[in-house]
Amino acid sequence: MKAREQFRAGKNFKLRDESADDRPLRNGDNGESKSAIKQEERELTLQLTDRIAVLQEMLYARRQRKVLLVLQGMDTSGKDGTITALFNRINPMGLRAVGFKVPSPAELAHDFLWRIHYHVPVGGEIVIFNRSHYEDVLITVVQGLIDDKECKRRYQHILDFERMLVETGTIIVKVFLHISKEEQRERLQARLDDPEKQWKFDANDLVQRKKWNDYQQAYQRAIVATDTDHAPWYVIPANSKTHRNLLVSTLLLEIMEDLALSYPDPDPGLSKLKVE
Amino acid sequence: MKAREQFRAGKNFKLRDESADDRPLRNGDNGESKSAIKQEERELTLQLTDRIAVLQEMLYARRQRKVLLVLQGMDTSGKDGTITALFNRINPMGLRAVGFKVPSPAELAHDFLWRIHYHVPVGGEIVIFNRSHYEDVLITVVQGLIDDKECKRRYQHILDFERMLVETGTIIVKVFLHISKEEQRERLQARLDDPEKQWKFDANDLVQRKKWNDYQQAYQRAIVATDTDHAPWYVIPANSKTHRNLLVSTLLLEIMEDLALSYPDPDPGLSKLKVE
Repeated sequence: MKAREQFRAGKNFKLRDESADDRPLRNGDNGESKSAIKQEERELTLQLTDRIAVLQEMLYARRQRKVLLVLQGMDTSGKDGTITALFNRINPMGLRAVGFKVPSPAELAHDFLWRIHYHVPVGGEIVIFNRSHYEDVLITVVQGLIDDKECKRRYQHILDFERMLVETGTIIVKVFLHISKEEQRERLQARLDDPEKQWKFDANDLVQRKKWNDYQQAYQRAIVATDTDHAPWYVIPANSKTHRNLLVSTLLLEIMEDLALSYPDPDPGLSKLKVE
Repeated sequence: MKAREQFRAGKNFKLRDESADDRPLRNGDNGESKSAIKQEERELTLQLTDRIAVLQEMLYARRQRKVLLVLQGMDTSGKDGTITALFNRINPMGLRAVGFKVPSPAELAHDFLWRIHYHVPVGGEIVIFNRSHYEDVLITVVQGLIDDKECKRRYQHILDFERMLVETGTIIVKVFLHISKEEQRERLQARLDDPEKQWKFDANDLVQRKKWNDYQQAYQRAIVATDTDHAPWYVIPANSKTHRNLLVSTLLLEIMEDLALSYPDPDPGLSKLKVE
């Protein structure tokens, strides 16, 4: 089965903690050690990203299609790690990562899509959003900053905005990196325990963690409301970092292969030219 | 000798074609094959970029200092290749590459520093400029779009702008990737001969190549005029791609080591905290 079918959220999607542990690309347990499995997953990911790098070059050479990969997930779910894995091989002049943090006053003074729109990909580019316009129907909902009516209005704004992007040449891939509550506990604890990681810890992460169930519910609602055939959501089990990278690379490669990309046709006149 | 002393342009700098072949980080010829040397340079570069990646994380953790690496060079001099080598290991959420092409009408309607200023690094970030504000004292001079008086005025605008950036926390590193005219001929010819590279070929490159000497002169003038202790120019022999990457990584690592970075001090209170 294709990854884009297997991991598509769809309209009946339910978020369940236990599924965050899944390693669907592994065919059962053949007795390998955990570190051997991880190493194998790392190597497979490099092979896939090498292949994505070639397709990205073709995309860039033609400058027509645009790819937008939206990454969402709870704190510590591995958005940065996923981005680093993709950048490992893909030419950074055609790949851009944009992080969206707490909006500035100037950003808040605009509609919530304003700062997002500015950063969408141009022809030939892959852009990865590290958080996105979806924060405006997640954290705002959990904190009670917007009511149900406003939330639904925003879903519609998102649907309209994404359809416009798709109709003007953008491929939209929305990925939810799904970790379990226990996995988040371990990752936050690791940040506290390691002096070289403590700077990553934000006391606000614990405040948000207390609202774990509210967030899961907000994610589930948002994903179901905005999963469309032209801008689908994929839910990626992400308790394993190496398997998560393998999965996201598999998905992105599959989507790029479907574009049937190629280099522009060479010009026979140019092929005969000699540079002096 | 430190790389920042060895490759510093300085006020008496002269561009000479033959020096583009230098491999100053190699200690003489010990009979290795060309491919063995390249492989060794690749591995050394990975070691250096791994170390830069750690320092970059410290820079990012503290969000105070900013690093701006300006890459300039003739067509095919390897600006993209250098950027790819750096992105190979450094976390892309703290490293950003910005390419400056032919200015848009909106950009042209502003002063030449306007579009540059927008993209300078924020605290904790390394930004690489693939071409820069220096194009406005290079191509414009060679094409006769500005006269000598305007060119000198722009040098001063650049000096003032860069001093302001340095005084507000930015480390500026300006690198000229120096290739020879013969090396450019080979690289352009390779683009014409290889059907998968032909899309990189731009007929305008041949037009510019005819003005090779004018460009070298414009570079030499611009580098001498804008080489300062706070925003120095480094001239990197770049006929060898692997040695070029090794050199730029060496230089960047040296500059980042001089910043004496460290992780923020851990908070003893946080270290005792247990996540629930």
